[in-house]
Amino acid sequence: MNHIQSYIKEHKDRFLSELIELLKIPSISADSAYKADILKTAEAVKISLEKAGCNIVELCETEGNPIVYGEKIIDVNLPTVLVYGHYDVQPADPLDLWDSPPFEPVIKTTDLHPDGAIFARGSCDDKGQMYMHVKALEFMVQTNQLPCNVKFMIEGEEEVGSRNLTVFVKKNQEKLKNDVILISDTGMIANDIPSITTGLRGISYVEVEVTGPNRDLHSGLYGGAVANPINILAKMIASLHDDNNHITIPGFYDKVEELSQEERADMAKAPFNLEDYKKALDIEGVYGESGYTTNERNAIRPTLDVNGIWGGYTGEGSKTVIASKAHAKISMRLVPHQDWLEITELFTKHFTSIAPEGVKVNVKPHHGGQGYVTPIDSIGYQAASKAYQVTFGKTPIPQRSGGSIPIVSLFEQELKSKTILMGFGLDSDAIHSPNEHFGIFNYLKGIETIPLFYKYFTELSK
Amino acid sequence: MNHIQSYIKEHKDRFLSELIELLKIPSISADSAYKADILKTAEAVKISLEKAGCNIVELCETEGNPIVYGEKIIDVNLPTVLVYGHYDVQPADPLDLWDSPPFEPVIKTTDLHPDGAIFARGSCDDKGQMYMHVKALEFMVQTNQLPCNVKFMIEGEEEVGSRNLTVFVKKNQEKLKNDVILISDTGMIANDIPSITTGLRGISYVEVEVTGPNRDLHSGLYGGAVANPINILAKMIASLHDDNNHITIPGFYDKVEELSQEERADMAKAPFNLEDYKKALDIEGVYGESGYTTNERNAIRPTLDVNGIWGGYTGEGSKTVIASKAHAKISMRLVPHQDWLEITELFTKHFTSIAPEGVKVNVKPHHGGQGYVTPIDSIGYQAASKAYQVTFGKTPIPQRSGGSIPIVSLFEQELKSKTILMGFGLDSDAIHSPNEHFGIFNYLKGIETIPLFYKYFTELSK
Repeated sequence: MNHIQSYIKEHKDRFLSELIELLKIPSISADSAYKADILKTAEAVKISLEKAGCNIVELCETEGNPIVYGEKIIDVNLPTVLVYGHYDVQPADPLDLWDSPPFEPVIKTTDLHPDGAIFARGSCDDKGQMYMHVKALEFMVQTNQLPCNVKFMIEGEEEVGSRNLTVFVKKNQEKLKNDVILISDTGMIANDIPSITTGLRGISYVEVEVTGPNRDLHSGLYGGAVANPINILAKMIASLHDDNNHITIPGFYDKVEELSQEERADMAKAPFNLEDYKKALDIEGVYGESGYTTNERNAIRPTLDVNGIWGGYTGEGSKTVIASKAHAKISMRLVPHQDWLEITELFTKHFTSIAPEGVKVNVKPHHGGQGYVTPIDSIGYQAASKAYQVTFGKTPIPQRSGGSIPIVSLFEQELKSKTILMGFGLDSDAIHSPNEHFGIFNYLKGIETIPLFYKYFTELSK
Repeated sequence: MNHIQSYIKEHKDRFLSELIELLKIPSISADSAYKADILKTAEAVKISLEKAGCNIVELCETEGNPIVYGEKIIDVNLPTVLVYGHYDVQPADPLDLWDSPPFEPVIKTTDLHPDGAIFARGSCDDKGQMYMHVKALEFMVQTNQLPCNVKFMIEGEEEVGSRNLTVFVKKNQEKLKNDVILISDTGMIANDIPSITTGLRGISYVEVEVTGPNRDLHSGLYGGAVANPINILAKMIASLHDDNNHITIPGFYDKVEELSQEERADMAKAPFNLEDYKKALDIEGVYGESGYTTNERNAIRPTLDVNGIWGGYTGEGSKTVIASKAHAKISMRLVPHQDWLEITELFTKHFTSIAPEGVKVNVKPHHGGQGYVTPIDSIGYQAASKAYQVTFGKTPIPQRSGGSIPIVSLFEQELKSKTILMGFGLDSDAIHSPNEHFGIFNYLKGIETIPLFYKYFTELSK
């Protein structure tokens, strides 16, 4: 594409200030208290698509948060790219660990981001990466270089399971018809080591409640004589992994895709330094399933993690109480071929079955999604690879990610098209954590690379 | 004693209204936010002792909450009774489980309290039981029947470990000199089955913190590859009990007093109905150490209970995060001869030792106290037994309690006198729980029985 670098240079400050305005709105989908901010964000995204050059833009109501849809059709005979992203963000707590308020974006330099990074919740996941596509469209439209048709589908419930997007996609197959789906909601290995995500893990997210006595009890008068829901919950959670950190739920591994030695050898080629990894997290050792490397543990193997736990007295000082109830939020990351609904059922059946007499157990599924693997011989992948070769001067490395974008497998199933995951974030960008940030280099590199994907995809489609 | 019943009948309404006023002040010692209420309560107790007839009353400052000291010395040649109680209360949460606000006392009848019970935090533990002694003194002074000297020591830190009372007692042995210590901070079996507590468990209360990565992490990108502090904490807590629910801390049982078959047989005589017990707690089964009955498990055996646990995302909805830290509050109930400082050390050593590579563990001791056993052949016990025989028409049953009053063993050590535990509450009074209450029958029966203890103790001391 012509003039892309000069265009970015000329409009860089505006590209940043526009994104910063979007990041100021706390669009937290997990907490209904932020509903108004969700709507405000959807409206802002809608306006940005209109300004960028879409000729149809609409807020599509759902039972939950609205989906922003936009399109620019230049010729029905040309291929169509469907861009997916989300404008909702993760909750920001624990707030006290943020160096600056999560919704007051600031630009600071870091070792990995010498050109500066925008610190704010959602800067990388996914407002920043989603907005790269809006600005890429602006460039192609402004310079009359849009080579094909484009559709945008930006949702507001990705962080809570995309339940209503699922309904929307099933209902609007004609409207969403496309030749390839493009998503920037993943990462790459390093700013000088571009990579394209070729696999995602599925997820099953549940909440469990263990109920013992019908009221909180004095731990002196009842301690040792009744089942303590917190001790029992701890025992039940502990039993979900064996000594090799294999998950003990019967049937859990039945459908797990086992990679060949060749595939594992290829994976091992990706640059990785265990010492740097431990140093970055300030841990003395890694921990996980026996027989697998760190990169395998968080990419090609399923996991079970407690994401939150609470029960009893958690205030200042001490209270000698046996709580009536204990709770935990538990998520399982799944690999291709594991069905999240089936896994949720297996978990529920098993977790209920291991409850001792004296407690009642309730398992409530939160949400889930299937894993996904994309082939690297598709023209979509080839187009992306060529785009990176131009902008980074290197062939990107295909990489499995441990994260989940539950909707991707649904896209393939319902829309019959492949998804290309062009992620420009870094694992160290602290998404879902305090001090989430997104490199300015990464943001602008994304805006520079995306139009080239359109160009090569259109050419390879001929 | 003469006229005690008529005096109670005449002043019953005032006895109730005075206690209710005291219960309205939220004197929660575990939370520094209530410091002003603590001081207000101490002042109210001071005034009540002056009105009851003490000729010296003072607020003794400590590094924490003040201790209310009062005395009425009528003849140095007569025996002296030291009354101990506490004006601080447990935190009231979870507030949503209270049928009426914890600090707005209401009187309601229950199956076990047909004459009505006062529902409020502290009604039984210990403001109500402490105030029985104030009113008993009032009666003896007003009717010129006080047979001996009396001293009061009412503290404001019992629910948080009595740290400053310990200092106070060691510093004031002459001032606190006495022939017997009288405490009403325990319970009895039933309103028609009076009992006197002859044993208390000790306690060691600690808070643990497990730290994994230096920040919260995305559970997709890191799940399965790093130690999850919540999973690890659950695993560590679970490992503290074996399959027989024996505690696995090395050395934990070394000094545990093993009761003889005879003693266990005596204990088994105390009326107890397992079905009623399970029904009252709405549990399908009891749970505890193999080889011991329910009454043994919560009285003569040491225990380990998690009183609170927290970590990760505990808000609405879901967050796919691996927390940097997980916490738990853990208390161990100890039996006679177990030293709480030694047990705290054993716990700390063991808990730190079982932490896997990849997490750091910090154990912070909160407070503790030794267990206690009182002989039933002392004149103090005999005097109490005779008093119950008069007011209940039955010989009280000696009973071990599972609860702890850490200060009791210190009293024996520092003041060289025995403690008599005349408790008038019921286990079902929900102390430390929502809807704590204290029967009006029990309150008045206490006021009626206490003066008789003074009478018989003085007579038996001759």
